[in-house]
Amino acid sequence: MTRLCLIAGDGIGREVVQAARQVLEALAVPAEFVEAEAGWETFQRTGNALPEQTLAAVQAANSTLFGAVSSPSQRVAGYRSPIVGMRKAIDLYACVRPVQTPPLANARAGVNLVVVRENTEGLYSGQETREGDERATAQRIITRQASERIVQWAVQYAQRTGRRKITVVHKANVLRETCGLFRETALRVLSDAPDLQVEEMLVDNAAYQLARAPERFEVLVTTNLFGDILSDVASVWGGGLGLAASANYGTRTAVFEPVHGSAPDIAGQGIANPLATLSASVLMLEFVGLNSYAERLQTAIQAVLANGPYTPDLAGAATTAEVVQAVIDQF
Amino acid sequence: MTRLCLIAGDGIGREVVQAARQVLEALAVPAEFVEAEAGWETFQRTGNALPEQTLAAVQAANSTLFGAVSSPSQRVAGYRSPIVGMRKAIDLYACVRPVQTPPLANARAGVNLVVVRENTEGLYSGQETREGDERATAQRIITRQASERIVQWAVQYAQRTGRRKITVVHKANVLRETCGLFRETALRVLSDAPDLQVEEMLVDNAAYQLARAPERFEVLVTTNLFGDILSDVASVWGGGLGLAASANYGTRTAVFEPVHGSAPDIAGQGIANPLATLSASVLMLEFVGLNSYAERLQTAIQAVLANGPYTPDLAGAATTAEVVQAVIDQF
Ligand SMILES: CC(C)[C@H](C(=O)O)[C@@H](O)C(=O)O
Ligand SMILES: CC(C)[C@H](C(=O)O)[C@@H](O)C(=O)O
Repeated sequence: MTRLCLIAGDGIGREVVQAARQVLEALAVPAEFVEAEAGWETFQRTGNALPEQTLAAVQAANSTLFGAVSSPSQRVAGYRSPIVGMRKAIDLYACVRPVQTPPLANARAGVNLVVVRENTEGLYSGQETREGDERATAQRIITRQASERIVQWAVQYAQRTGRRKITVVHKANVLRETCGLFRETALRVLSDAPDLQVEEMLVDNAAYQLARAPERFEVLVTTNLFGDILSDVASVWGGGLGLAASANYGTRTAVFEPVHGSAPDIAGQGIANPLATLSASVLMLEFVGLNSYAERLQTAIQAVLANGPYTPDLAGAATTAEVVQAVIDQF
Repeated sequence: MTRLCLIAGDGIGREVVQAARQVLEALAVPAEFVEAEAGWETFQRTGNALPEQTLAAVQAANSTLFGAVSSPSQRVAGYRSPIVGMRKAIDLYACVRPVQTPPLANARAGVNLVVVRENTEGLYSGQETREGDERATAQRIITRQASERIVQWAVQYAQRTGRRKITVVHKANVLRETCGLFRETALRVLSDAPDLQVEEMLVDNAAYQLARAPERFEVLVTTNLFGDILSDVASVWGGGLGLAASANYGTRTAVFEPVHGSAPDIAGQGIANPLATLSASVLMLEFVGLNSYAERLQTAIQAVLANGPYTPDLAGAATTAEVVQAVIDQF
């Protein structure tokens, strides 16, 4: 039987993962759930934000749903972001964030893009040093192998989903070596895909174009931190961070998450939007091959987006529980 | 007499700097102009994209207007971006990009923000290495001194222009040392400015908020590459890159430029929008203390924005020359 691991995390992470579990159970998804812990609360209790058992549970599961975690704003010895740690430890190398025009009033029509982000290196390599209070250095590491792998992933994704254009985003006019290597590698991989239209764009211009003319994009492929920033800009057109879902694909398993954070300002109030986590669940169900369940859930989400009720981030007054019930009522 | 250095550069850089010179002459600005060269064409001819004489001319001038340069998309030995080189060589440490709602139909009302970007270090340190075809590394260097200086600049600017809120943008949840140092330093400097409301924001969220709710910002202060990306996103609300102006302030002199590039696709057609360069000229005139000229030019630009004619980037069909004439007709 399909095993799904659930990691609630902190803040509204708990509320939205609990909501997703309720919905998946109502959908009678043929899967068993295991729960595991991670995050700031876990760190405070155990000294480890990503315990070994959690990593083991993720690796043993067919797929994982990850809520959101809080992180300390001060440096805290030994603390490292569990989602970043998990991406690296399990080599979840492809971070994929689709953005489509939602069935919401006033939504901008014609947006249907996906940001494919390298998820294991770049400025997320974790290689930083600090010289006293005066100076700190971080290494941005780009390898040919990781660049090749992520662009190949993007090509296969584009071909599988019938997209015809890939935009390679870099800053090779300044970062001649690191972005240069990414760019060269990407263009070489793409030269083997003559069915795809290839475009390259500097990251500042890509952010600008995403903010003003998102319909011009189909698939963007880029390095880690650029993908982090660009996918947040893109999510505006999908109805905002309350709706944005993210997949972290590895070779054997995958971790799905809402793009939003743990939102301490609204945690515990029961008003978090569960739809990003439910959209992440659709991607998860597709990944484990439960396609008909994925479709039913996706249809239900679209119906609720079209008709409400809406949580405050979508200018409504509904609670998480009311949105969950509305989704379940669609089944 | 005030000496203004003009560097046209490549592509439409030539057209817009020529346009600015015409306008400044029509305005009878009490200044003498000197011309200097830089860019890709200069590199191809002389082997140096930023000749020594150009640097000397910039340092000898009260202020410089810089058009735009092309850069090779392949790595070319010895080529380095002249604008990046100039910022570093002359220690033009504060890159400042104001964005305001323009008097254009359909413009989003209520936007009035400025991005203050550290301009000498970070990922622009130029310290990159490449290990064969397999791996490349760039150093992101953050110092306390440069962080302090840019945040102090932002504080003084906010106080001088009557703004009350500063947003410190970083990614300290991942870049704990480099962004951590920037963040700590910024918050320490800001604790001496109790008249200002201080907010901090992660760069991905800042890009998202700039793309959807720009009116919430007054002054943003951030590191080099983040500022590069965020200022392009912000420029959408000011009428786009065809209107966005940039100042690079040092301790003794300053360099002003349009944010747009050399636009090889439209170069030579006489349809480049000169207004970004004219807005940069307003900032330049203010910097050298020619405030009444700055005001007259700013008023003329606003009138042309309100009534046209418009170049193609603003959905019009006017030429550069027609826009220049319309501006001059306002004097
Ligand atoms: C929480 C943070 C470490 C993470 C990232 O930067 O990758 C988040 O912003 C994301 O995009 O998933
Ligand atoms: C041309 C390029 C080197 C430059 C930068 O990255 O700073 C430009 O994008 C800018 O914002 O002025």
